[in-house]
Amino acid sequence: MYHYLLWIRYDGTDFHGWQRQTDLRSVQGELESALKKVVGDEYRMASSSRTDSGVHALRHPVGVKTPVKLPPVALFRGMNSVLPMDMAVVDVQTVPLGFNARKSAVAKTYRYRVLNQTNRDPFIGRYAWHVPYRLDVESMREAAQYLVGEHDFSAFRAADCDARSPRRRMHALVVERNGAEIIFTLHGNAFLRNMVRIIVGNLVTVGRGRLTPAMVKEILDSLDRTKGAQTAPARGLTLMDVDYPMELVASGALEW
Amino acid sequence: MYHYLLWIRYDGTDFHGWQRQTDLRSVQGELESALKKVVGDEYRMASSSRTDSGVHALRHPVGVKTPVKLPPVALFRGMNSVLPMDMAVVDVQTVPLGFNARKSAVAKTYRYRVLNQTNRDPFIGRYAWHVPYRLDVESMREAAQYLVGEHDFSAFRAADCDARSPRRRMHALVVERNGAEIIFTLHGNAFLRNMVRIIVGNLVTVGRGRLTPAMVKEILDSLDRTKGAQTAPARGLTLMDVDYPMELVASGALEW
Repeated sequence: MYHYLLWIRYDGTDFHGWQRQTDLRSVQGELESALKKVVGDEYRMASSSRTDSGVHALRHPVGVKTPVKLPPVALFRGMNSVLPMDMAVVDVQTVPLGFNARKSAVAKTYRYRVLNQTNRDPFIGRYAWHVPYRLDVESMREAAQYLVGEHDFSAFRAADCDARSPRRRMHALVVERNGAEIIFTLHGNAFLRNMVRIIVGNLVTVGRGRLTPAMVKEILDSLDRTKGAQTAPARGLTLMDVDYPMELVASGALEW
Repeated sequence: MYHYLLWIRYDGTDFHGWQRQTDLRSVQGELESALKKVVGDEYRMASSSRTDSGVHALRHPVGVKTPVKLPPVALFRGMNSVLPMDMAVVDVQTVPLGFNARKSAVAKTYRYRVLNQTNRDPFIGRYAWHVPYRLDVESMREAAQYLVGEHDFSAFRAADCDARSPRRRMHALVVERNGAEIIFTLHGNAFLRNMVRIIVGNLVTVGRGRLTPAMVKEILDSLDRTKGAQTAPARGLTLMDVDYPMELVASGALEW
């Protein structure tokens, strides 16, 4: 058996999320169709993440185990020659058989874009949440600091989240203004279902002045999802990168 | 009668060009549906340009004459509340009744994006032509210089172009590398049908080494469309801006 790690990139707008579904276009479904053509033999696939419908990815790693021996560059070129326009393989590495794309991950980075101007913008609308009210970056930063560190994030998980433990460590939560956009960058050891979108929904509510920063601390401490604000829409969210221990993936990387 | 100049922005991917067509989604069609709701009375519309299917616009001016008196900001807000996601009004000005969005234009700027790397990119694919062969910017710049100035551009117009004269003045044609992209910026007094896309198609052929810069001069002099290279795809093209004489549009501009 051989084990390859495919790093995929996709514009999530026209996908119904990662998970394969009958009659609906999914990232997994398109990837499997392409693998069937390129690998032409049996394989097992394991994703680092299950992105929601409409969420984008810049570098989303997916492990593929197969008895077929292929140079990584052949897999890279073959996949890109058959994948649809809104999806590409950006890197292929060989990894040990014991590697697990989900369990071996030590950290993930997500980015959330908010377009903070009165008017919509047709070129940014697919990739950002349009918030036409002036947001106060300083108060959002203050609120964000309560979420950094290790916490029980029960108040920031979807009702249907099936993770055994709600404890997660947030390494950093950066809020920046970049022209008309506000960018939220979240770096943590792992994330619960909808956790990034619920955090952003709460921070934006702080930015509008409808919650104080201290109330975000109270929401966190309540461990109760019903205390917080609305979940931010999927369109603004991008999975930026996943970190693995150096010794597992240091070899065989292609240029991108 | 009142005369308003609406500056519109759209992601052209899902439009079949400017011109209204039965059963096909067009920029004009969507604009008219929105105007019917917002103006609620008769109006006449005149576009500066007829963009092709798939072509984008950052600032595309459209004149609207109507007996309805509206503050520009009301037209701006009203239109943006009813236009679809991939289209927005970015500015509204009042202009004299004798103003003509097409005939009063003194210059236009187009930008063409080429993604020049081996692999596709799902986030740029809607807005750029993917050319996976290394392009030589210097030879494209040399070829571009033959097209600057006033010329008969018959060799660079579509077969179905209905302009009376094929003479146009190209003020500037700039070729730049920006990371993995090559950007062509064309500024001229007016453009023939498909002129930008045919010019870019020829320049990219020079960049690949399949035409010499001097051959572009020969193609220009031949006045024969069949001598040149393929037309570049629409997806890479954006109408950036249209210039009018200062005295016609200097007043009443909104903030954007």
